Amino acid sequence: MPVKCISVLLLLLQLSCCFSSGSCGKVLVWPMEFSHWMNMKTILDALVQQGHEVTVLRSSASIVIGSNNESGIKFETFHTSYRKDEIENFFMDWFYKMIYNVSIESYWETFSLTKMVILKYSDICEDICKEVILNKKLMTKLQESRFDVVLADPVSPGGELLAELLKIPLVYSLRGFVGYMLQKHGGGLLLPPSYVPVMMSGLGSQMTFMERVQNLLCVLYFDFWFPKFNEKRWDQFYSEVLGRPVTFLELMGKADMWLIRSYWDLEFPRPLLPNFDFIGGLHCKPAKPLPQEMEDFVQSSGEEGVVVFSLGSMISNLTEERANVIASALAQLPQKVLWRFEGKKPDMLGSNTRLYKWIPQNDLLGHPKTKAFITHGGANGVFEAIYHGIPMVGLPLFGDQLDNIVYMKAKGAAVKLNLKTMSSADLLNALKTVINDPSYKENAMTLSRIHHDQPMKPLDRAVFWIEYVMRHKGAKHLRVAAHDLTWYQYHSLDVIGFLLACVAITTYLIVKCCLLVYRYVLGAGKKKKRD
Amino acid sequence: MPVKCISVLLLLLQLSCCFSSGSCGKVLVWPMEFSHWMNMKTILDALVQQGHEVTVLRSSASIVIGSNNESGIKFETFHTSYRKDEIENFFMDWFYKMIYNVSIESYWETFSLTKMVILKYSDICEDICKEVILNKKLMTKLQESRFDVVLADPVSPGGELLAELLKIPLVYSLRGFVGYMLQKHGGGLLLPPSYVPVMMSGLGSQMTFMERVQNLLCVLYFDFWFPKFNEKRWDQFYSEVLGRPVTFLELMGKADMWLIRSYWDLEFPRPLLPNFDFIGGLHCKPAKPLPQEMEDFVQSSGEEGVVVFSLGSMISNLTEERANVIASALAQLPQKVLWRFEGKKPDMLGSNTRLYKWIPQNDLLGHPKTKAFITHGGANGVFEAIYHGIPMVGLPLFGDQLDNIVYMKAKGAAVKLNLKTMSSADLLNALKTVINDPSYKENAMTLSRIHHDQPMKPLDRAVFWIEYVMRHKGAKHLRVAAHDLTWYQYHSLDVIGFLLACVAITTYLIVKCCLLVYRYVLGAGKKKKRD
Repeated sequence: MPVKCISVLLLLLQLSCCFSSGSCGKVLVWPMEFSHWMNMKTILDALVQQGHEVTVLRSSASIVIGSNNESGIKFETFHTSYRKDEIENFFMDWFYKMIYNVSIESYWETFSLTKMVILKYSDICEDICKEVILNKKLMTKLQESRFDVVLADPVSPGGELLAELLKIPLVYSLRGFVGYMLQKHGGGLLLPPSYVPVMMSGLGSQMTFMERVQNLLCVLYFDFWFPKFNEKRWDQFYSEVLGRPVTFLELMGKADMWLIRSYWDLEFPRPLLPNFDFIGGLHCKPAKPLPQEMEDFVQSSGEEGVVVFSLGSMISNLTEERANVIASALAQLPQKVLWRFEGKKPDMLGSNTRLYKWIPQNDLLGHPKTKAFITHGGANGVFEAIYHGIPMVGLPLFGDQLDNIVYMKAKGAAVKLNLKTMSSADLLNALKTVINDPSYKENAMTLSRIHHDQPMKPLDRAVFWIEYVMRHKGAKHLRVAAHDLTWYQYHSLDVIGFLLACVAITTYLIVKCCLLVYRYVLGAGKKKKRD
Repeated sequence: MPVKCISVLLLLLQLSCCFSSGSCGKVLVWPMEFSHWMNMKTILDALVQQGHEVTVLRSSASIVIGSNNESGIKFETFHTSYRKDEIENFFMDWFYKMIYNVSIESYWETFSLTKMVILKYSDICEDICKEVILNKKLMTKLQESRFDVVLADPVSPGGELLAELLKIPLVYSLRGFVGYMLQKHGGGLLLPPSYVPVMMSGLGSQMTFMERVQNLLCVLYFDFWFPKFNEKRWDQFYSEVLGRPVTFLELMGKADMWLIRSYWDLEFPRPLLPNFDFIGGLHCKPAKPLPQEMEDFVQSSGEEGVVVFSLGSMISNLTEERANVIASALAQLPQKVLWRFEGKKPDMLGSNTRLYKWIPQNDLLGHPKTKAFITHGGANGVFEAIYHGIPMVGLPLFGDQLDNIVYMKAKGAAVKLNLKTMSSADLLNALKTVINDPSYKENAMTLSRIHHDQPMKPLDRAVFWIEYVMRHKGAKHLRVAAHDLTWYQYHSLDVIGFLLACVAITTYLIVKCCLLVYRYVLGAGKKKKRD
């Protein structure tokens, strides 16, 4: 009976929240795996709390999506011909290739591997997307459900097609994509290469001349030689489904709102558009108490405090050699260390270091005893460190991680190392620097203050814009007219060509007239002479 | 005694507001006259209410600034050699020239008059600014006052120099400037001419090819032939005062925050920067009851309702001929009309029309009986109409008014007429259209809904950012690195030049090598032949 009462109370609470924010809506979610999902789930939980009905489309091969029986969120599981381990192996293969086969600081190695992976990943996404679209029963169910909005992660293409087929607005949530390509070519954003370091270039703001050369080369490479997924195939697929010629980027450009998982504490300022909002760090929250065993270990560090070490949700293992290099450095610290690691216990592991298969990262970073964070530079972890004002040692592996760590280094809150090549001494010195040089803590605290001082909390903003799009049935009044122009119109090339042609014709006519007059005068002169 | 109690209570309330938002700050204001001041005063009142100390620098020739004994705001009046009537005549001369001598729809007439006026106005501003800077007593007082921020209207230059001299952050509040020049060249904003109709071009979004040609020509004209005030003289003046070579635009670029008095209900979406926020319509508020005589007149309109007519705070008179054309049209309406007019009563004035020297415009526009608004298209009035969802007939006169009315027309909430050339029938038809065609009311209501549905109210946002800049002693982390680049670096011209040179040298070397090899092979062949 009390359970029933609580349920009724919760329902009433949901309804009241719902009414206070307008009306309850139905949100269809097209998610992406791993940290992308963890971030999006925070938004979905908040939407559920506001009384909205949230339905997540997940394939039968989903890795982390819906694996924790998320309460309140509905999951619509569709069958795919892929197996979970196939998808998992694909990602793991990429991650470990990125860690051991290439250097993240070598453009061409990284870019060509990323290009290869994106093409392969694009094929997987296309297959899965086809399995949804061609699943008549599922599509009829979705049509009949009368959703109000599609919330999609554009790094997993398909959401834009769903929104188009269901004739409902579209909201994107993303951290970014190689070369900012989706924001630029899908979102219509113009980013001057002179001061906006392109995503995955590993460049910070305040670029030198040669860095600006590098950045422009990266921009040209991404614009002309890098696939926006396997876009030709997506164009064909979307055109076939919709029965009219349409491009993948054209459908992306219809998005009503782009919720970017970043903010100016992490990134350097760059232009944005009215339908772009920055919601980075929306998952961060004050620390909760640690499990007793962990709290006891942390407290045992005394004045020296602790160091937290994690390479993110995807990498929990390392080669024996690398693990020992790290363990040996950590062993020399006066601090206690909590290391998320699932591999074989390194021989060099010091008594001050404890291995954990899982750590409550946000709670640890928010613990008053935490002095530093060794991180791979994933945006979620970096935002947690910013939120709690913890200096970092960054060991970037792939994706946006290099950029994140380069930005943190440029802002004086991190030291960057190379996981593949660093020695024990390098790691030890880096940790000593960020712990003992007070400027790192000060800079981290400055970033923390910037993060906490926003007109509205990032999560509230994300919920506001999704509800806004539902309330107004889109947000086309926030979408720039750039989307209605071709690329040459957008860059005014047709207008410039026309004006140059006008100038050329006018010049030609003037010269011709002058010559005619000159010849006439010359002719008259000669005639006079002859006479 | 009760008055004392109330004062103490108010003080306590101020202090509590103040503490809740961080700490009380000291704001120095460098304002601009007329509607600019009316808008800025709303922000200042809100700042005073939050417990901040607000000091406005006004010259002894100020026209409307501080004329109403604004409570809570301090005025620091400095002596100027100009007389109030001189300044007033300068503006009135311009206004009436714009109304009667040129056509606002003729680019070259309007632009050349505006250019002339800006140059003359720039000289007045420079003289007044010098009178402040060279006033040692005043400057010492300002230095000793230890202000936290300068809030300036950049259309009245000088604020940026004050902030630099006092070594404090700078916040701008502006609606815009001819060709968006200040936002572009001072703020570092890149606006693609292909889809952003430049300010004062009178073009809307969704431009045709020929309109895009016009827009690009306007951009080129403003960028290369139009003065950003008398900028060479300002560069020299600022350099002399600061004792180092500095430009006017360089100092503008140091602004921490740009509060733009516009929003996407009025304007079409265009790129913005992280330190730009849109606060248009911050002065709008729910309607208060009308004075009894006015309310009786409005109520007497019955079902037909009323029409509100005002040409803004600066124009309260017209020629007899124009006044009669208007009066004759208004006389034929079934509605009652409230007309703000100070000139001679027109002979054709109908019994349904009443003339007022002053009208409570916002309260009238928010009255349920109001059906339409005849306006000159000033941003303040247009925002009030948007706020209350009232369709408009626009008679734009100068400045941004043509743009505002063109935007409202494009959004289906207004009909545009030309005050100088319209006939009575034109005005009557326009009024009948906006009153009787329900689409105008619907579109005005859509804009109203957009205006009311923002993550935070515009006025709260303006106060937030000013307090933010005081809390963080600036907001340099929101300022793009574009400001640190020269114009050719900003457009990557040096990088493009370098890359082209590399390509040219490489091509030259390859061709040279090929030729050498070819000659060698040819030489060897000939030698063989000879042998």
